[in-house]
Amino acid sequence: MNESIRGFKFSVTEAAIKKPGRKDLALIYSESASVMAGLFTKNKVKAAPVKLDMKRLRSGKGQAIIVNSGNANACTGEQGLKNAEKMTALVADGLGIDHNLVYVCSTGVIGIPLPMDRISLSIPKLIRGLGSYTIRDVASAIMTTDTFPKIVERGIRLKGVYSRIVGICKGAGMIRPDMATMLCFILTDLNITHTALNASLRRAVNESFNRITVDGDMSTNDTVLAIANGKTGNRPIEKDSSDYRHFELTLTEVTIELSKMIVRDGEGATKVVEIIVKNARTDRDAQKAAYSVANSLLVKTALYGNDANWGRIMASLGYSGIALKENNIDIHINGIKIVSKGIGTGKDKDPAKIFKDKDVRILIDLKMGKGCATVNTCDLSEEYVRINAEYRT
Amino acid sequence: MNESIRGFKFSVTEAAIKKPGRKDLALIYSESASVMAGLFTKNKVKAAPVKLDMKRLRSGKGQAIIVNSGNANACTGEQGLKNAEKMTALVADGLGIDHNLVYVCSTGVIGIPLPMDRISLSIPKLIRGLGSYTIRDVASAIMTTDTFPKIVERGIRLKGVYSRIVGICKGAGMIRPDMATMLCFILTDLNITHTALNASLRRAVNESFNRITVDGDMSTNDTVLAIANGKTGNRPIEKDSSDYRHFELTLTEVTIELSKMIVRDGEGATKVVEIIVKNARTDRDAQKAAYSVANSLLVKTALYGNDANWGRIMASLGYSGIALKENNIDIHINGIKIVSKGIGTGKDKDPAKIFKDKDVRILIDLKMGKGCATVNTCDLSEEYVRINAEYRT
Repeated sequence: MNESIRGFKFSVTEAAIKKPGRKDLALIYSESASVMAGLFTKNKVKAAPVKLDMKRLRSGKGQAIIVNSGNANACTGEQGLKNAEKMTALVADGLGIDHNLVYVCSTGVIGIPLPMDRISLSIPKLIRGLGSYTIRDVASAIMTTDTFPKIVERGIRLKGVYSRIVGICKGAGMIRPDMATMLCFILTDLNITHTALNASLRRAVNESFNRITVDGDMSTNDTVLAIANGKTGNRPIEKDSSDYRHFELTLTEVTIELSKMIVRDGEGATKVVEIIVKNARTDRDAQKAAYSVANSLLVKTALYGNDANWGRIMASLGYSGIALKENNIDIHINGIKIVSKGIGTGKDKDPAKIFKDKDVRILIDLKMGKGCATVNTCDLSEEYVRINAEYRT
Repeated sequence: MNESIRGFKFSVTEAAIKKPGRKDLALIYSESASVMAGLFTKNKVKAAPVKLDMKRLRSGKGQAIIVNSGNANACTGEQGLKNAEKMTALVADGLGIDHNLVYVCSTGVIGIPLPMDRISLSIPKLIRGLGSYTIRDVASAIMTTDTFPKIVERGIRLKGVYSRIVGICKGAGMIRPDMATMLCFILTDLNITHTALNASLRRAVNESFNRITVDGDMSTNDTVLAIANGKTGNRPIEKDSSDYRHFELTLTEVTIELSKMIVRDGEGATKVVEIIVKNARTDRDAQKAAYSVANSLLVKTALYGNDANWGRIMASLGYSGIALKENNIDIHINGIKIVSKGIGTGKDKDPAKIFKDKDVRILIDLKMGKGCATVNTCDLSEEYVRINAEYRT
């Protein structure tokens, strides 16, 4: 994978934000002011950097993103906002660019003031390091409970112009992904209008990160930022052009792949679980049903225990609030029909056969209409509890 | 505690429904046809006994309840319904009473046909045993993952008549109590009209079992049945009389105490957690906020780890969907002010002091209005995962 991308430079350094011993401060820099689009948490308790970025994004422009792990700068009041602003100001001044072109993201523990002394001291070093590091180094620096850096790259050829989209993200609190901080940065050297970048990002996120979380339920810090620097020199891609559709599709591929990496790295997860609901009355019903199954702790723990406990799936469908008929429902797990017309087929008794692969695919046919939806999740193990009972200590 | 109650007899026996070695079939019998009221799961996938009981309850009358543990008789199709009916028919014939006066409840694994041969053989023995057992034996027989039988008794004196209310229940799947089967039986020797019993039961359940669960989210089998045999010979209590209010209050005390026992016995729970939200815009907002905190896995795992991780509480309030102002919020844990106006007070650092008691009381002041609500829950431990990953095996 070629992870370099025209016109962008990267840097990371250690600011010992939570504790010493790893690079926890990162910088993404575009050589020129670029088109920016973003999506943020819908949580009413928003972290300071989210509030600042939302304001800055109104311009549709950006040039640098500073990110720290180890501290979320959330629930930190006025001082938190000042600290977020100061981080961007130090970066802007060091780079000699407008403050308003700098964005900031934070992830980690909530409610603790940022160690601004160490961060301020580290920023000059961070700027000096630009060009000496890769986007993969950034992907590593932004990790919290993640066990591997998440990076996806796609080439895209438009009327003879060859361009690239590179995305990185972090996030591993999976059982209720709405609570995990998810940060994602997408870089492209394409020339695209703000309207087009914004629209395609919304679509891509909806098909990916929003399919591993409950709609509207997000952490205090969730942020997706996309930046397009136009270095390829193509005519700007306009919304709804054929180039646009090509771009949107590629961008969606990148975000879907990143979102699957988050699921695979779910805290304590031993299995990736794909839940497909088809023939619901509507797409919205299918989505509600899929989320209901995906969020059921009893389903997740059963899957962890290699138990094709379809009764728990039936129960979670039953309380999902959608229209259904119990004696219509078919359920397949990894291609094996476990439930036919609401009743067990008896084929749930051979876990070695059903769970021979690491991943699980649950297909639910409601036979109520034509709505369908897919949601990705993971199982729930004791390790999840251990990680989250010990997160701050 | 005097757990006998005029005009009721009890029996239990072993039918080896899931496996041999314990009494798993129980019978509650009233010497005369009695007033019955009930509440059932709102899950659209309803177990066969629930469907049957709902139909029978239209008469407002009952005389016997047969209960089995080890098998939920849910998702068992037409045969499941026939089996539920057969259980009641065998009991009715054995007792020489009308089939329609017999109710049936089942709890345990979903989707497996009941072993009707063993149940049928056991019912005559069950009937012969009436009078040889106590309601405490019934409370033990209906347990599944419960670790102790749950029984609460209250005396009630109305205009010189001394009567009693005895309640038993089972239920221990706590982290999402909507998924655990909760069965509850309430017996009284008072004379009360059906209208009054029904209204008071609804009120009592709303203040108790509905405060440990998310509204409308229930298992396939949840059932609460109340039976009043009138043996005290008082004039029937009418709805909205002063006797009615006394009865309703006492009944509510019984159900609240039972619901707290369920929380205390939460699967793998090490702590009982009471979440009080006050000064929300409305009571409904307070309830939504309290449920949001109570259901947050990150809050539950932090409490398990003795971590007063208030940031996770703030985040769960933020996505609860209610009106709030971050810088209004105060949070006390066990009387210690951890958050003041949305910001940590720094007093969260002494777990030995904060968590010196087994139980946890989280008080959240939103300063938005006058709405308040209390929800009881428990923490989440590795043991919960172990129990539920191994439930069927």
